[in-house]
Amino acid sequence: MTNILIEPDLLSRLLDVVGSENILTQISKGFQDFQKDMGDFESNPRAVIQPTNTDQVSIILRILNERKIPVVGRGAGTSLTGATSSMGGVIIDFSKHMNKILKIDTTNWYVHCEAGLVIDDLNEELSKYGFFFPPDPASTPWCTVGGVISENSGGMRTFRYGTVKNWVLALNVVLADGTKLKLGEPLPKNRVGYDLVHLVCGSEGTLALITDAWLKIAPLPGAHGTHIVKKFMVFFSNWEDAVNSITAIRAKGVQPNLLEFLSKEAMNAVNNAFDTKIPEYDAILFFESPIDLLPEIIETCKTQHSVDSYIGKDEKDEERLYSARALLLLGIKTLGSGVYNEDIVVPLDCLGKFLDYVRSVGLKYDLKIPTAGHAGDGNVHPTIVFDAESEDSRRKADHAFADIIYEAVRLGGSVSGEHGIGSQKIKFGNYQLRRNNGEKALDLMRAIKQLWDPNNILNPGKFIAEDTAN
Amino acid sequence: MTNILIEPDLLSRLLDVVGSENILTQISKGFQDFQKDMGDFESNPRAVIQPTNTDQVSIILRILNERKIPVVGRGAGTSLTGATSSMGGVIIDFSKHMNKILKIDTTNWYVHCEAGLVIDDLNEELSKYGFFFPPDPASTPWCTVGGVISENSGGMRTFRYGTVKNWVLALNVVLADGTKLKLGEPLPKNRVGYDLVHLVCGSEGTLALITDAWLKIAPLPGAHGTHIVKKFMVFFSNWEDAVNSITAIRAKGVQPNLLEFLSKEAMNAVNNAFDTKIPEYDAILFFESPIDLLPEIIETCKTQHSVDSYIGKDEKDEERLYSARALLLLGIKTLGSGVYNEDIVVPLDCLGKFLDYVRSVGLKYDLKIPTAGHAGDGNVHPTIVFDAESEDSRRKADHAFADIIYEAVRLGGSVSGEHGIGSQKIKFGNYQLRRNNGEKALDLMRAIKQLWDPNNILNPGKFIAEDTAN
Repeated sequence: MTNILIEPDLLSRLLDVVGSENILTQISKGFQDFQKDMGDFESNPRAVIQPTNTDQVSIILRILNERKIPVVGRGAGTSLTGATSSMGGVIIDFSKHMNKILKIDTTNWYVHCEAGLVIDDLNEELSKYGFFFPPDPASTPWCTVGGVISENSGGMRTFRYGTVKNWVLALNVVLADGTKLKLGEPLPKNRVGYDLVHLVCGSEGTLALITDAWLKIAPLPGAHGTHIVKKFMVFFSNWEDAVNSITAIRAKGVQPNLLEFLSKEAMNAVNNAFDTKIPEYDAILFFESPIDLLPEIIETCKTQHSVDSYIGKDEKDEERLYSARALLLLGIKTLGSGVYNEDIVVPLDCLGKFLDYVRSVGLKYDLKIPTAGHAGDGNVHPTIVFDAESEDSRRKADHAFADIIYEAVRLGGSVSGEHGIGSQKIKFGNYQLRRNNGEKALDLMRAIKQLWDPNNILNPGKFIAEDTAN
Repeated sequence: MTNILIEPDLLSRLLDVVGSENILTQISKGFQDFQKDMGDFESNPRAVIQPTNTDQVSIILRILNERKIPVVGRGAGTSLTGATSSMGGVIIDFSKHMNKILKIDTTNWYVHCEAGLVIDDLNEELSKYGFFFPPDPASTPWCTVGGVISENSGGMRTFRYGTVKNWVLALNVVLADGTKLKLGEPLPKNRVGYDLVHLVCGSEGTLALITDAWLKIAPLPGAHGTHIVKKFMVFFSNWEDAVNSITAIRAKGVQPNLLEFLSKEAMNAVNNAFDTKIPEYDAILFFESPIDLLPEIIETCKTQHSVDSYIGKDEKDEERLYSARALLLLGIKTLGSGVYNEDIVVPLDCLGKFLDYVRSVGLKYDLKIPTAGHAGDGNVHPTIVFDAESEDSRRKADHAFADIIYEAVRLGGSVSGEHGIGSQKIKFGNYQLRRNNGEKALDLMRAIKQLWDPNNILNPGKFIAEDTAN
């Protein structure tokens, strides 16, 4: 893949802003790192710009807006749906320079940090103060503050702590025309003006570019003797019993910190790839909970015919259980040359029916669909494995992907719980909005986009864009 | 106060929609209940319409929108800022008919209910299932679902559970032109489309009228042995020690459920009015916390020179402590014929400085300003008591009100944490937005308003409206 040459006069203007060491074009070292993302969506950027501060971002956007050139903000490119794919536009990379912690405030319980900061780096620093930033998408070793806000990311701890948007107090953003704007206030409560912070959270870089953010932080679990937690697994000989255990636990009002579902096929893939040595039962529930709740959870699972359980022996052993779940996508990727990763949410009372349907889709198309996910909040990731070299296999996978989504929406579910829409799911996202919310909801969203970005330069062709595929 | 006569042809059209028993005009019984709200803002509605279902709301709005007649949604009228004052428009009252619980779902942990449902009624029903809706504005015996969402209300439990917007999954709304629309999905996670739910939360009825909502619910504290909680008070001989205790507790990462501040003046007013018999120290901190945290909290206060403490003896005694705080505004109202209730948020590290300033303002204008509030999240309610019959006293109170707000904003705080803007604080809200967020933020908000309500019929002259006062 080669670069589309950037217009020489545009390059010259941008060089004046950030200097040659901060613009990557085809001949520069490292440019190729921006041609692909973690979801394997490939496209060629016009150029990659690595600004050092917000003023530069503002000037760059003003220049690009004048020329109506598309621009995509990027942290680590760990999107799984094509959200950071440049599609010929300019990439603004926040990870190189704009990655600092500006303030850790343990009185007001927030951290102020730049968009390019890696989540694990943030948490490493926060841990020195006894705090952490709870949302934990599987990509925390790489993904960045700007990315997780723009994607409103989830993760395993979401079940207890909610998605990223619950943790954003205020944002500094740059609008498409270069205007610098602060949204919200770094305060626990603020009733002044419409909530533009949450409008930008999860908007996939289509409304504004986030330069820095005030994020809420929480005390690390285990502090002050109240929240000693244990990680453990419960094993089942069939999916139905596992799902019935989840609904029974919920109906009792019991709140674990994590509640994950793993199918045998998924567990087997991870064991083979990473030697995690987890027993391979037909269905596994993986929990973290306050230690006081552990007996009630295990007892409830027994009433639903669980076969066995395993409590992490020590911190290292608990980490093994956690990583067996965290490594899931990487494990499944070893099963075939192509994977489509679903990100379905269904109402919990429909979860059993939905998982059965996924299994039937696998049989129908003769495809492996290892399934796992954050079952506690009904968010599961059936992952369709196919042969990327075979047109027939790819077509089957496309059909399976769509079938699973339509069934989820029919059951009152959602196309995406945490991975977002990007370029991958525009058709399905629009379908869900029209069907469940009304045509006018989509109209209002597009009018808001038009208001914020009249020239449609911010991540065009993503999220709520018109679907151009057939 | 008499009614402005509603146009006869308009009345006739509205009567066709809801029937004469559901329209109050000047001659009807009960009309006078809608001329005043809990904040004593008085104004005369053109008519009060009490629809029985969403279709009626839709038709009514279409009719009013055609004629560009202002309309204000109303639950119980417990706004403290004039947000439900009709100012000559039509009131749509959801409390009479649209007040039902439609579904309690203990598997998916939500309740689906209509806008006019009273919060205490909701919680009474939820408690039968072991669940509750955590936000607890002091007006829960009267205030309604639609009201607390439109106001993004807070309360004492906000410190632990967040404000109402954290508890809203999805909404059914009617737009100004009568379009019925669902916003969001009743699912714990949903990444489809911009977050219009949070845009409407706290928008004070200026974007759409909420007809029914899916609210998250939580297990009642005390279930499953993990959250046994106690209510207790710690007493101080000066404000500084109390405030230092708060910041010391926060810096340790200790999270009580409630953390309230009460000044001697405030406590005295409540004791006198309601015989609550709370010791009157210069400063009181009122806590609810998991029982495990109680010793650490009391010890931390001792390091900051607390004088004494009192732990609720039993449930009834704990309720006495709670009500001493909950009755605050009613207690203070007995001190004078007029009160202005502030709703300031300041960063916690500025709280001491801010409270000192409030005291100095009281001295400067020779006004009583009893102060109390949700000190744990920096949200306090200095309440200015004045003589409503005296022009001089009222002018002093106006000046004190403004002085306190400007100082709060100067310290990095907010004009309002939970009571909102209404008609009372438009000037100050706009000031804060321009100063802290930028002129363009206000422009964007007004453009969003224009998009949703082109004829400006939904609660005009409130929230982010132009300030027409001098």
